[in-house]
Amino acid sequence: MKLRELGEDRLIARLVLHARARPDVIAGPGDDCAVVVLPGKKRLLLLKTDCVVEKVHFSPNEKPGAVGWKAMMRTLSDFAAMSGLPQYALVTLIAPAEREAVWVTRLYRGLQRAADRFAVAIVGGETSSTSGPLIVSVSAVGLVERARCVRRSGGRAEDILFVTGRLGGSGRSRHLKFMPRLEEARWLTENFRIRAMMDLSDGLGADLPRLAKASGVGFALEEEALPRTRGCSITDAINDGEDYELLFALSPNDADVLGKKWRQKFPRLPLTRIGHLTQPASRNTNHGFHGFVHFQ
Amino acid sequence: MKLRELGEDRLIARLVLHARARPDVIAGPGDDCAVVVLPGKKRLLLLKTDCVVEKVHFSPNEKPGAVGWKAMMRTLSDFAAMSGLPQYALVTLIAPAEREAVWVTRLYRGLQRAADRFAVAIVGGETSSTSGPLIVSVSAVGLVERARCVRRSGGRAEDILFVTGRLGGSGRSRHLKFMPRLEEARWLTENFRIRAMMDLSDGLGADLPRLAKASGVGFALEEEALPRTRGCSITDAINDGEDYELLFALSPNDADVLGKKWRQKFPRLPLTRIGHLTQPASRNTNHGFHGFVHFQ
Repeated sequence: MKLRELGEDRLIARLVLHARARPDVIAGPGDDCAVVVLPGKKRLLLLKTDCVVEKVHFSPNEKPGAVGWKAMMRTLSDFAAMSGLPQYALVTLIAPAEREAVWVTRLYRGLQRAADRFAVAIVGGETSSTSGPLIVSVSAVGLVERARCVRRSGGRAEDILFVTGRLGGSGRSRHLKFMPRLEEARWLTENFRIRAMMDLSDGLGADLPRLAKASGVGFALEEEALPRTRGCSITDAINDGEDYELLFALSPNDADVLGKKWRQKFPRLPLTRIGHLTQPASRNTNHGFHGFVHFQ
Repeated sequence: MKLRELGEDRLIARLVLHARARPDVIAGPGDDCAVVVLPGKKRLLLLKTDCVVEKVHFSPNEKPGAVGWKAMMRTLSDFAAMSGLPQYALVTLIAPAEREAVWVTRLYRGLQRAADRFAVAIVGGETSSTSGPLIVSVSAVGLVERARCVRRSGGRAEDILFVTGRLGGSGRSRHLKFMPRLEEARWLTENFRIRAMMDLSDGLGADLPRLAKASGVGFALEEEALPRTRGCSITDAINDGEDYELLFALSPNDADVLGKKWRQKFPRLPLTRIGHLTQPASRNTNHGFHGFVHFQ
């Protein structure tokens, strides 16, 4: 059935069918705003929105469930970047009226499966028609203890740089199946003083300079050390983007302890020392950096 | 300059230039998530997202500042619907790379002006390119005292129905300049026990049945009583949509007091009694209702 035939109200009724009930959600989809009960103090509220656009972030013949997974996980990955706990999500779907309703239902199944994986409640959203490509936008709200909120700006010269997982090659479908490093980020801030952290969405080549700039320092990258996806060159690992791995900095003392503890806790996920932060003067010593940037 | 030439980082740097600083915003645009400090307890968190799509919600030759105003106010209007106080907003812009950067700058000026009007902080967002029409999506988070949170579902048979302002004719540019009824909603719940409320976005013809359904009751509409925009017929007032006025229900006793107090407080904004809620049996006695519904 076409969205045109199904209509908005019936579409929404279908889409929210699988949403889980949570005792702290007073009103979910179906009222003007979602309403949730706030937990205790000492926590900061995190807000993040992200979107995927057909022909930009996914191709039209991609499986809708995978597109939904990606749309949700892109947003949740930014909570990992701050060691936060995402709680509530809003989903906006902008779709051509000619799109098959079953495609959209599968898309939402992917969104819901991704949200469930991290106990996130989809509490509302919005649908609209469009004459252009299909777009899914996911906004989320989460919490983080004040002392465990890691920003990009806390890095200092001599801090050691690490990345989780392997970089590069995300275009070969990996970008539709990735797992945000939420648990890893929580473990890191529980056990170490992480000075600066971010998730790699535009590629190390674009993102590392951003972290360094936010921290007011430079960086030195050991390119040969980069953990690469099988079949990827160093250039791929630097430029491909959409890795959704964590990039973070911590003191040399902490760095020495981290490796062993990590392997015990996450034996299947590589953690690699890829360089260090430097005094600002030596910034930009690495050339050829240009991760994926929109509009360019 | 085209967005293609400007690039994403420089675009964002331009756009956040005018964002106001707020002491409770620890991190705004530029980090992975926005970070804000939570106020005290006894309040509920409200979440809402809404979007405007070129050629659906605004025409390509509309002034960008007015489009920005509309995009922000559509979302804020839903906070009025629950008597909430919007606090933080995230803005997603999905634009063709060929769009002039100055158009986008003006769009954001409109968004910011609208946010400033109700002391809402724009704390982050997202930009993406697209091969289709331009889209602006605004998500916001707000607060409301538990006792003052008004949902659609609290209406009872015999409750009196009111609307603020005048209905119909929004297509004639009014939909780009409207003022969400946030102050009016706050005043209402401060002084009266409002049983059910919503903002009229799809037209009274679509929205009143939703309020009645959510409350498990029917409704009787006095069509001749509808406050109409100059030049609008009763049908226009029922079906045009995008009024962004408040529709609410309260007990007959309260209704008798309301009119006079309202005129003293808001002498320039009409408040009109348009009917009442009924027992469920007599539901759907009004025909010809069909506000604007997407995909249809």
